[in-house]
Amino acid sequence: MADIVYFDNSATTKVYPDVLNEMNRIYSSVFGNPSSLHRLGSEAEKVLTESREIIAETLKVSPNEIFFTSGGTESNNWAIKGIARANKRRGKHIITSAAEHPSVLECFSHLESEGFSAVVSETDKSGLLDIEKFIERINDDTILASFILVNNETGAIQKAEELISAIRFKNKKTAIHIDAVQAYGKIPLNLKKLDVDAVSLSAHKIHGPKGCGALYIKENTRIIPIIHGGGQENRYRSGTENVPAIWGFATAAKIIHENIDANRTKVKRLKSICISELDKYFGSGGYFINSPQDAYEGILNIAFPNVKAQVLMHHLEAESIIVSTGSACSSRKNVQSHVLAAMNFPKERTEGAIRVSFSGMNTEEEVLTFTGALVKIVPKIRYR
Amino acid sequence: MADIVYFDNSATTKVYPDVLNEMNRIYSSVFGNPSSLHRLGSEAEKVLTESREIIAETLKVSPNEIFFTSGGTESNNWAIKGIARANKRRGKHIITSAAEHPSVLECFSHLESEGFSAVVSETDKSGLLDIEKFIERINDDTILASFILVNNETGAIQKAEELISAIRFKNKKTAIHIDAVQAYGKIPLNLKKLDVDAVSLSAHKIHGPKGCGALYIKENTRIIPIIHGGGQENRYRSGTENVPAIWGFATAAKIIHENIDANRTKVKRLKSICISELDKYFGSGGYFINSPQDAYEGILNIAFPNVKAQVLMHHLEAESIIVSTGSACSSRKNVQSHVLAAMNFPKERTEGAIRVSFSGMNTEEEVLTFTGALVKIVPKIRYR
Repeated sequence: MADIVYFDNSATTKVYPDVLNEMNRIYSSVFGNPSSLHRLGSEAEKVLTESREIIAETLKVSPNEIFFTSGGTESNNWAIKGIARANKRRGKHIITSAAEHPSVLECFSHLESEGFSAVVSETDKSGLLDIEKFIERINDDTILASFILVNNETGAIQKAEELISAIRFKNKKTAIHIDAVQAYGKIPLNLKKLDVDAVSLSAHKIHGPKGCGALYIKENTRIIPIIHGGGQENRYRSGTENVPAIWGFATAAKIIHENIDANRTKVKRLKSICISELDKYFGSGGYFINSPQDAYEGILNIAFPNVKAQVLMHHLEAESIIVSTGSACSSRKNVQSHVLAAMNFPKERTEGAIRVSFSGMNTEEEVLTFTGALVKIVPKIRYR
Repeated sequence: MADIVYFDNSATTKVYPDVLNEMNRIYSSVFGNPSSLHRLGSEAEKVLTESREIIAETLKVSPNEIFFTSGGTESNNWAIKGIARANKRRGKHIITSAAEHPSVLECFSHLESEGFSAVVSETDKSGLLDIEKFIERINDDTILASFILVNNETGAIQKAEELISAIRFKNKKTAIHIDAVQAYGKIPLNLKKLDVDAVSLSAHKIHGPKGCGALYIKENTRIIPIIHGGGQENRYRSGTENVPAIWGFATAAKIIHENIDANRTKVKRLKSICISELDKYFGSGGYFINSPQDAYEGILNIAFPNVKAQVLMHHLEAESIIVSTGSACSSRKNVQSHVLAAMNFPKERTEGAIRVSFSGMNTEEEVLTFTGALVKIVPKIRYR
């Protein structure tokens, strides 16, 4: 594996060695059920409490506002369905954007079958939601607005503060949920400043384990559970807590936040090297950058004219370079990215679009290997 | 930890060393997202496929009938809500028993708020549901019947074949779900013979990882997802698959099924030694066995007159012996067990009730340590 260039860190990441060590320690020595009243239960409960404090600290919120889930998809499902269902007597109108992750869009579409009026507002050319149109659509019945903070396909960073103030100004009772799965640990996220009601997080996007995530829920937010039972997570999310993974998540969150500035400087440099190499070989008109200029630097969406993305991806793979053709969660369903489609790009910018996603673990050498491979491959696979 | 006597295997189990080794292997070498179209994705997808085949084989069903979840609680939630919601146009009547796990009872209670008529039928003295009364309550509108196969507090084994035939005879369209979380890997479960529509399983009750479970769904069963998104698990359960834990689950399932007879012979022997020692010291009238005679032998619910369960549990804990006062998932909520209450036991059989749950990893020596400790502790803590 050592010689693989892994540039698909937005799909999933490799766990930090320290995360794995810590998880092994918990599996071996703290295996009790946190709900048990005996010593082994209390030890497990203590690990949970500490994990909750660590995650809360990274967001500048209170530990009792952090609820662990099985991952980003469950967090998005819970926030959206839980808030919509809890507030249905106050209104039936919910709103999101066209450039969301499928776990948001599919929840909105499902809630239509429960009688909600689910509006999907358009995005602008940069892949960010069109704030003016979004706000226009909010009315007195709007109980929920949900948007992605860092887009998973382009890295576009939503102008969150501006958008949130505008939503609050239009309807101060509208609950605001942000999908921060691609943002958490990558860009600063201070919920003391960002006035939102719910935030979805995932562990496996920050070198933590799969099958673990969290939902921040601001105190006094009206939300009901989507998973009922023994009343774990302060009665909001039932099921035996996944203690080893939760501790792994907390460990990863701690490491990535200690390195958040260094990592960002690094991925910024990787992106800039990548672009200057591509400019050098292809000329600035010989390829397209689909990510907006001020996107999160760890995600770079590019396209080559007359090249099919899947063909390019597989040729890169033959050179042990791993990139993706879009979001992993959408990749099996449609060749065309719904995010790029929502941006109204012409076919030549979408059919050949690949997503390159860096992490702090990648190196400059890997970027040069990647651009070198592109120089070799692209001319060979142009279909005209 | 080596000198702890752990008799709380129904709450959670310690992972098998081989399970941990295998999970570490996957974390280090197969870290791709199974939805990714590249090599790392396919490798992860292969692990998923093999895991699905292993679990399917243990139940004698087809791999495409196995869907991975975040655990037993999610499986119960999905089966019950998913089947009820998918069939609401055919009927609104759903039925279960009073001796179920909270994750079943709370789903039934939640579904009432969605307009379903949720009936909780009574149990008989042995903790099994009263088949006659249960069947009496099934009508033309009954779309779902759900029951636990091995009760988590008493070990009572439901007479499943008899019950299922009776349900099918009364209304052949009623979907049948069984909560097999405590049964799986402990007693044989052949779904070629047992004609059910959905079965919930959990990994951490069979020495697999926490945060992982499965739902068997018979082909052509009408059920909708409770977690929407990228369409993983054949579009039925979205979210990046927890590949390391799923493989850990499959590994544990394989080990426990290879040893299912040997383990059962062993826990039978542990139970019999325990009872004969208790008879010797306390006399057959000096304590109560709340588990029915033909219960699964790995769960033994006993009570001592004029002894409070929590006090006994903590005194045992001081001797490094871990038992529980009931289900972990209920333990923080109520002192009194709803299962024992449903069995109509007098106070003297419930207030002092402890659950001793063995696994194939326990030893005869540990049982003697336990009974020896009881002989010392019980006379000291009787409150009159």
